[in-house]
Amino acid sequence: MTSTLILMRHGESEWNAKNLFTGWVDVGLNDKGIAEAERGGQLLLEAGLLPDVVHTSLLRRAIRTAEIALGVADRMWIETRRSWRLNERHYGALQGKDKAATLAEFGEEQFMIWRRSYDTPPPAIDQNDEFANFNDAKYAHLPSEARPATECLKDVLVRALPYWYDQIVPDLQAGKVTLIAAHGNSLRALVKHLDDVSDTDIVGLNIPTGIPLAYELDDDLKPVTRGGRYLDPEAAAAAIEAVKNQGKK
Amino acid sequence: MTSTLILMRHGESEWNAKNLFTGWVDVGLNDKGIAEAERGGQLLLEAGLLPDVVHTSLLRRAIRTAEIALGVADRMWIETRRSWRLNERHYGALQGKDKAATLAEFGEEQFMIWRRSYDTPPPAIDQNDEFANFNDAKYAHLPSEARPATECLKDVLVRALPYWYDQIVPDLQAGKVTLIAAHGNSLRALVKHLDDVSDTDIVGLNIPTGIPLAYELDDDLKPVTRGGRYLDPEAAAAAIEAVKNQGKK
Repeated sequence: MTSTLILMRHGESEWNAKNLFTGWVDVGLNDKGIAEAERGGQLLLEAGLLPDVVHTSLLRRAIRTAEIALGVADRMWIETRRSWRLNERHYGALQGKDKAATLAEFGEEQFMIWRRSYDTPPPAIDQNDEFANFNDAKYAHLPSEARPATECLKDVLVRALPYWYDQIVPDLQAGKVTLIAAHGNSLRALVKHLDDVSDTDIVGLNIPTGIPLAYELDDDLKPVTRGGRYLDPEAAAAAIEAVKNQGKK
Repeated sequence: MTSTLILMRHGESEWNAKNLFTGWVDVGLNDKGIAEAERGGQLLLEAGLLPDVVHTSLLRRAIRTAEIALGVADRMWIETRRSWRLNERHYGALQGKDKAATLAEFGEEQFMIWRRSYDTPPPAIDQNDEFANFNDAKYAHLPSEARPATECLKDVLVRALPYWYDQIVPDLQAGKVTLIAAHGNSLRALVKHLDDVSDTDIVGLNIPTGIPLAYELDDDLKPVTRGGRYLDPEAAAAAIEAVKNQGKK
């Protein structure tokens, strides 16, 4: 028996549009992001993929994306769980910085390492930085040593996997259609794990916003079809191209 | 040590405004209801009463009220749990009926018994009625004999109390500030239990929409102050008067 997992990256946020590094900064969706979430819900409805449970990060752009999409699909009432382990990659000292200015200041090589390197994190954020999250009530339950001050994608995978195994896998094994509403990098980490993508290949893998990505998983939680399927494959292909060129302009 | 419970009745729905009996029919908030939920969130924020966990019914007007209020209070990320046991009273065959027409057809005495009697439910809804919920995915986990076809307030209390004891009380005992976003009658049932309101007196007790009602509870989960306190007492008093006259015009 297979189980169904649906990954959904939040739509455009107030800071995506401004071209700022966001990470753990808790900005909301903008109007385009709200429309993307609505469209995502419509795609779920049309595909007849109705989630029984939703997992989100603790960040409002992912939470709102789930709320909106599930509202469109008439599934607002399903079981809802959240974890910081599904948060976007913590962007360290880059949080709140302009992407174009960072590119100009540090050059393309350093810029692309920080954006895309699998295992090199940006510099840690200072505890007193206005975009640090050290006093955020969301993370009050985490002892200080467990709170990231910067992360590379590898770090994201390491902190996301315990949640995958302990909280998401049991839902899938119980036969629940499971939606994860999260972020570019937390979803890339999960896709790396699911599809066994190499450390090299993951660098070039982008996940478009707002288009549900459905995986059928076998009894051992392995994808029946590697890479899953986007519910709007053409829009996904076009968006993946666009993301590849982001920040290069 | 006391614990804090906050009750919040959803704001105006599409059907409140049309003066239809709603019950388990899953209608959304209207613009006034959305504004009421925002105001509720603002009141929580101003009072410094920040929920750690939210419990809602399975109905979207309560779910959206919680989402909106928690968004305003920057608490979207808290633990979220839902149950049909917090649903509005099932209004039986009256669901979808116009209140004024029902009053005209059956007379004020019968009308007020159906609206307010503690232990007399309206006639059961027919399984084939367009406003029955027998095939609703929300309730698919409930064997047919556990699904109400009509309810009086006493029935609501009987089905809400297990959720109170098993799911809400443990949160309060763990010291979590606990928000319940629900409905006129499921909240009246909880207030009847908390304040030990008599079967007679509960008939005249109304809970206004959108104004958080905060209870401090002692170690035995008894209110420190009977009746709790509304976060906007003047608006609450005015709204309670208005509800009393509803349907009498």
